[in-house]
Amino acid sequence: MPPVTIRQTLPAEPGAALLGRALLGTGLDQLDTPCLLLDEGKLRANLEGMQARLARLGVAFRPHLKTAKSLDVGRIAMTAPEGPAMVSTLREAEYFAEAGVRDLIYGVGIAPAKLDRVSAIRAQGADLALILDSLEQADAVAAHARSGSDALPVLIEVDADGHRSGVAPSDRDLLVAIGRRLVAGGAALRGVLLHAGDSYALQDGAALVAAAEAERVAAVTAAETLRAADLPCPVVSVGSTPTARYAQDLTGVTEVRAGVFMFGDLYQAGVGSVAPADLALSVLATVIGHQRAKGWIITDAGWMALSRDRGTARQAVDQGYGVVCDLAGRPYPDLVVADANQEHGIIAVRRGSQATLPDLPIGARVRVLPNHACATGAQHDRYHVLDRFGRVAAVWPRINGW
Amino acid sequence: MPPVTIRQTLPAEPGAALLGRALLGTGLDQLDTPCLLLDEGKLRANLEGMQARLARLGVAFRPHLKTAKSLDVGRIAMTAPEGPAMVSTLREAEYFAEAGVRDLIYGVGIAPAKLDRVSAIRAQGADLALILDSLEQADAVAAHARSGSDALPVLIEVDADGHRSGVAPSDRDLLVAIGRRLVAGGAALRGVLLHAGDSYALQDGAALVAAAEAERVAAVTAAETLRAADLPCPVVSVGSTPTARYAQDLTGVTEVRAGVFMFGDLYQAGVGSVAPADLALSVLATVIGHQRAKGWIITDAGWMALSRDRGTARQAVDQGYGVVCDLAGRPYPDLVVADANQEHGIIAVRRGSQATLPDLPIGARVRVLPNHACATGAQHDRYHVLDRFGRVAAVWPRINGW
Repeated sequence: MPPVTIRQTLPAEPGAALLGRALLGTGLDQLDTPCLLLDEGKLRANLEGMQARLARLGVAFRPHLKTAKSLDVGRIAMTAPEGPAMVSTLREAEYFAEAGVRDLIYGVGIAPAKLDRVSAIRAQGADLALILDSLEQADAVAAHARSGSDALPVLIEVDADGHRSGVAPSDRDLLVAIGRRLVAGGAALRGVLLHAGDSYALQDGAALVAAAEAERVAAVTAAETLRAADLPCPVVSVGSTPTARYAQDLTGVTEVRAGVFMFGDLYQAGVGSVAPADLALSVLATVIGHQRAKGWIITDAGWMALSRDRGTARQAVDQGYGVVCDLAGRPYPDLVVADANQEHGIIAVRRGSQATLPDLPIGARVRVLPNHACATGAQHDRYHVLDRFGRVAAVWPRINGW
Repeated sequence: MPPVTIRQTLPAEPGAALLGRALLGTGLDQLDTPCLLLDEGKLRANLEGMQARLARLGVAFRPHLKTAKSLDVGRIAMTAPEGPAMVSTLREAEYFAEAGVRDLIYGVGIAPAKLDRVSAIRAQGADLALILDSLEQADAVAAHARSGSDALPVLIEVDADGHRSGVAPSDRDLLVAIGRRLVAGGAALRGVLLHAGDSYALQDGAALVAAAEAERVAAVTAAETLRAADLPCPVVSVGSTPTARYAQDLTGVTEVRAGVFMFGDLYQAGVGSVAPADLALSVLATVIGHQRAKGWIITDAGWMALSRDRGTARQAVDQGYGVVCDLAGRPYPDLVVADANQEHGIIAVRRGSQATLPDLPIGARVRVLPNHACATGAQHDRYHVLDRFGRVAAVWPRINGW
């Protein structure tokens, strides 16, 4: 796959291109900057594409809501109002459970001290499941299940690729021991869960197809190990945006999780798991100065608004702190946020490019496509939602914290 | 200066060492993790040291509240309840003005669209001053001053070191032209303001002394240029944590701004502008797993809790995503957060070290010293304030956003 270049494109929504530039961006000059913009048409298209893809592959879709942390986004992302959905914090679990989401997995290995809070969420009607990868955690969950009469549902986290947590899929003894202790202790063994996090480091389609298949094989291996020991394993859950996008066959898998794809970002575009034209999230910034001798345009969107995430620095194309676009979302040629301080972004032409710095006077506004939607989103408390005419049609709150 | 090594030390507050470890950390096992801890004794000592230093140098202290974004911290940091203080967003200006702070500078070049909001803050009684570095901004401010009968106070931003924004101190024509347009337009020219941001890249005492002197000379040069043109320049404002710490002489300067020093962080410790033992901010984390074959301990404090800031990667000692300490705040030898995902921290012994991985079972808690206090703080909405016995004595809210 060649290095990804963000091309100048019109927004993908039907209608916007026909209406022309005159109507695009109406309203963006009224917003306080910096702020977060979300293109609803692209969000919906990204979600429809993934939902259709996973339906073809015959698996359920469990959207990971850690990127959006928004009920409005969640309602579009989930295939039903009650879920399924995935969360990364108990704060998210509480937020979505209060809004009626019923089928939730908390996707971070459980700490025993969090079990009371888990049971409180479950007591309000949400079927919140946990993950773990050790006997110590299994014992703590079993003890809690016994003492509180709450048959906590648990998925055993399995390590797909050495990325982070999880039991090795070949470690039959540990998988079975964890499963048996859970079942004996009164918890509900619900299955296995994997996350092929190392797929993020790939930038090659064939390697991504292989990573997805490796994730599937690890999942099925672990599930079969449990079943061979007469342990239940109804759920076989895999997922990451790259492997969800590249999986060719999901035999034996029951559900796929993915989250960041719904917004997309420059990092995922670099991996090849989203198309550059489909990025739904951007940061609106105002020009506040120039250092003309250096070829710098200074804006009010620094790393506080964009996040400190520099993930593309490790990819074939380093996008700095983000790609700079006009108000219609069209990238200026080779224009990036080359550096950032807390509340200052320094825009410059990409090193080595012959592109011309655009004429952006004091007060002009630009949109910046971020490296990492999860990190950039977390710097904000709301989305300004753009309709297909590029106008602000709604403000959707989002949560942060734990 | 040799590479900075975080040494095992007892907290610096009188009393804590005498009371011994038994009392330290009481209460930290009750907090939901991850969360932010603030050692009040270290905060106060850092502030007292800076206040005394600047008093000796004969200049006023204008604490930058962009790191803390907390009224409770601000009240300790400011030399009087009404200020002076510095802010990095209009949201901060509103928050501190509502609490009675009267002498404020908004330290990001003003965008014309923000002037109505500035005047609204001023109308409530706060003397909020602006900075700018262009004729375009001066014209917009002057037009606003005329139309709204608000004699907006302005400091001209001067470039100390090529770091970011500001008029070159040698650019007499531009400095005077901006000053004249402001005065003619009915704005109040209050002085010059500089920030020696490039000092952050230094790690050598002599170079830092020189950077502070260069910042002073640039400030005085610009001030004298304005005065020679019969323009007012009552305020000569300089500042950054490194130059505030290393300035030997501030003749001609009227005030110094600094902020991150009050918490300190690993980056500033690497620069040499704070002592490693004086870091007041840490993130409390819980152990949620192990990958023993890899020498990894997994916690629930990932980059969402620590921030994506990897500033020490460019310093002599790369501290990963943070230095791992026990509950009393004592660093484990060579133990760092080697990698981080959104809600997972991966703790490991620093590469090349012979140190032993400590025995930290599931549920154990650690404190992580962050790379960058401004970035880490922004991931949280409150401080858990530790008293001199290491107990949680208070919870102080903080703000984020714009």
